[in-house]
Amino acid sequence: MTISKAYADLERRGRIVRRQGLGCFVAPLKDGKQEAGDYRAGNAGRAGEWGYGDGNKSENHWEEKGGGSRSSGRNAIQKESGARRKFAWQEDYGDYLPRAQLWRNFDYSEAEYSFHLAAIHSGMLPLKEIGEAMTMLVAKRPELMSVYGNFQGDLGLREVMTTHLRARGIPLSAANLMITSGAQQGIDLVARTFVGPGDAVYLEAPSYTGAIDVFAGRGAEMISVPMDQDGMRIDLLTKLCDRRPPKLIYTVPTFQNPSGVTMSMERRQRLLELARSYRCLIVEDDPFSDLYFYSPPPSSIKSMDKEGHVIYMKSFSKVLAPGCRIACVAAEGDILERLIAAKAASDLGSPLLNQLAVLPFIAGKYDAYTKELRAALRSRMEKAARLLKRHAPQGVEWRLPGGGLNLWLELPNSVNIGELYRRASRQGISFLAGHVCHAGEPSSSHIRLCYAQMEEEQMERGLLLLMPLLKEAMNDRMM
Amino acid sequence: MTISKAYADLERRGRIVRRQGLGCFVAPLKDGKQEAGDYRAGNAGRAGEWGYGDGNKSENHWEEKGGGSRSSGRNAIQKESGARRKFAWQEDYGDYLPRAQLWRNFDYSEAEYSFHLAAIHSGMLPLKEIGEAMTMLVAKRPELMSVYGNFQGDLGLREVMTTHLRARGIPLSAANLMITSGAQQGIDLVARTFVGPGDAVYLEAPSYTGAIDVFAGRGAEMISVPMDQDGMRIDLLTKLCDRRPPKLIYTVPTFQNPSGVTMSMERRQRLLELARSYRCLIVEDDPFSDLYFYSPPPSSIKSMDKEGHVIYMKSFSKVLAPGCRIACVAAEGDILERLIAAKAASDLGSPLLNQLAVLPFIAGKYDAYTKELRAALRSRMEKAARLLKRHAPQGVEWRLPGGGLNLWLELPNSVNIGELYRRASRQGISFLAGHVCHAGEPSSSHIRLCYAQMEEEQMERGLLLLMPLLKEAMNDRMM
Repeated sequence: MTISKAYADLERRGRIVRRQGLGCFVAPLKDGKQEAGDYRAGNAGRAGEWGYGDGNKSENHWEEKGGGSRSSGRNAIQKESGARRKFAWQEDYGDYLPRAQLWRNFDYSEAEYSFHLAAIHSGMLPLKEIGEAMTMLVAKRPELMSVYGNFQGDLGLREVMTTHLRARGIPLSAANLMITSGAQQGIDLVARTFVGPGDAVYLEAPSYTGAIDVFAGRGAEMISVPMDQDGMRIDLLTKLCDRRPPKLIYTVPTFQNPSGVTMSMERRQRLLELARSYRCLIVEDDPFSDLYFYSPPPSSIKSMDKEGHVIYMKSFSKVLAPGCRIACVAAEGDILERLIAAKAASDLGSPLLNQLAVLPFIAGKYDAYTKELRAALRSRMEKAARLLKRHAPQGVEWRLPGGGLNLWLELPNSVNIGELYRRASRQGISFLAGHVCHAGEPSSSHIRLCYAQMEEEQMERGLLLLMPLLKEAMNDRMM
Repeated sequence: MTISKAYADLERRGRIVRRQGLGCFVAPLKDGKQEAGDYRAGNAGRAGEWGYGDGNKSENHWEEKGGGSRSSGRNAIQKESGARRKFAWQEDYGDYLPRAQLWRNFDYSEAEYSFHLAAIHSGMLPLKEIGEAMTMLVAKRPELMSVYGNFQGDLGLREVMTTHLRARGIPLSAANLMITSGAQQGIDLVARTFVGPGDAVYLEAPSYTGAIDVFAGRGAEMISVPMDQDGMRIDLLTKLCDRRPPKLIYTVPTFQNPSGVTMSMERRQRLLELARSYRCLIVEDDPFSDLYFYSPPPSSIKSMDKEGHVIYMKSFSKVLAPGCRIACVAAEGDILERLIAAKAASDLGSPLLNQLAVLPFIAGKYDAYTKELRAALRSRMEKAARLLKRHAPQGVEWRLPGGGLNLWLELPNSVNIGELYRRASRQGISFLAGHVCHAGEPSSSHIRLCYAQMEEEQMERGLLLLMPLLKEAMNDRMM
């Protein structure tokens, strides 16, 4: 109790920052600099959350506390305004939030040169067609706006997705599919259904930030598995699982986010074998398999799954219209039934109109569209890569991705990426700092650049502006 | 271990049904009757989940098990098809789902006479206006479909809602509001952020099924507080809180769902006082306050809240276009910030187009529209009530609601509502069985009828068809 009060006192004085279950870390010195990653204008920022180079240490584990008492202090901040003081009781109100990165790194950005989001520029998306479908629906079937859809998703859309998946080696029926509000919700539903405090979740290092946040939010013990050019190191995974059996394995096997790496066919098979032997689930998150530049990627893990071990997620939002928030989750047996129950409690089902607006495009035009999109994205990626090759300072390394939307740049590991980030944002340039792609250990010498988020010329200008900043950051560390 | 195996064996033989953390209950005899509430055609139903009159008992507590091992057996069912046998491993795959009622009682229904959903018939909704707004947006700002919105919700819509809330005594700024995909998601975000295993959540008995499911899913200890004609019995709540301090209090104070009861002003004040003294949160779920029939309801609890104890939720879906899934959550201080983080991890934000499609209507026409809607709903309610008065068998009781969408009928308590439900659905009539509105103890002698879900004449025909079934059910018990 005394220690607890002492900590609370330190917190109040802004010297340390505590997060529920995450231990304490030392607050950065107040130097008047606003954290670049903090978009919450008008609110007192939470000190130290960005966590760069200030000696901050936090263990990213969710410590289950005995007795269910969660009223120990948390995230007290320098309270500057009296207006906030009346909410002081809230500081002690316990929560179950992890130290999430997603919401402070991916929100709507005012950056002039946006490289931070793995997204496709609106000019390349079939918005006209989808808009026309929506207009028609609204005119002819206005009642669609009035009904709660089926929790599992519209049957017609699921049937169209069945055809789509069958052509990609996944011969499931509409009864095995569920529509979610983007793949993010799919991951979230899996986590809330099957992952709880202390459950072992294996994932690639690096991995998708949104998935890390979700599993952290469930109190999972996340175990990172290194990758090489053939994807997740299944040999290491096997050894790790020997010590700590997996509850769930999360993977983006194709043009991985953020690294761009594709898992080999042999490893896909071994991964599935491993899941069978441990009677566990694999979440196969597959936003990019249609966006290959040279040759089609290996078959999905789901296509080899006979026993319902794989929950397959395919985002359609990403490639068609992110604002519509439509993804498809394929699963079998009781696993799917439980996910549908979770979906119902979560939001009563995704908006029906949005589901039906993408239906005709997926049914009729998706394949021709993605063929063109692949060519356009490849050309952009190659332009970006050429530009990097010519202008990036020596010591910056990357691999040409075989598909997807991102370049994953490795900087010399003593570069202060937090400082680079701040300088870049002062010039209106955003990128994703690699540390948010890691569970637990928040250090990384990588940055992720999406080459598809802007108009092509804008993207090129942005890269040219970024290069001197990279050089500067690398020189800094020399001194 | 031996006991565990014995249970697993019993499960496999279909004699008992186990649910993770819910204890065991005896499976109903297989009598060939398909459960009426189970929409999952083609899937083996989970035996015993309906839980009527078969001597089923389940404790609705989430027992935190030590050590995190969750692989004990669960929900094994009579596996009829060999095809399902290959998924047998799934039976032992632990989850964190409660015995949810929502998804099996509210899904898209084929009922000819639908009384089960608290919803407004499409003919009464402003779908034309909202549709036109959507069409215009799609034509003029197609890029809206391509962007991830702000996690907190579109600023323009939040500003419109600010005006709306100010006119209702809640003078908050747009920074204090968050847009969610329906109030269901709002409740879910609060629960996932602030409620965990063993936390005490107080709520009215009866209450909204969707909220019960969500809190159960978090492993909360739900404590039901009886109501009278002035709403939740705050005197009893106070006594209960003496013994078990509340983490959160969930209430629908105005035209409560399902009972229709409105909490008095005095109790609202006392409830807020209680929350202050316990430093806890109140979730004020307010879908119906604009739908009053006689006089406006008392001010919201949020309007009296100076210290951020109340999270106020207002569904716009319900009254404008349920299919658009738009609700507003008002909260203050750090509590709101944490909810936004949860929203981000949950789905990256609600679809922007849907948000902007309802904006002009809420800004310009909402008040005139709800004035007309109130009159129309009142007329319907009174028609339904007259019809009941004339044709309902003696012993059925109800109170005229002062607003909202539902009639809450009390039947003599020995009526077998499960049997009534089955007979009604054979005639194409759906209603909500009262037991799903109770946390824990699944017995109830109430049914909820929504008088707004159908065309008026259809509603009247449905009621006339239902009355003889009520009579029959009441005669049954006499024998």
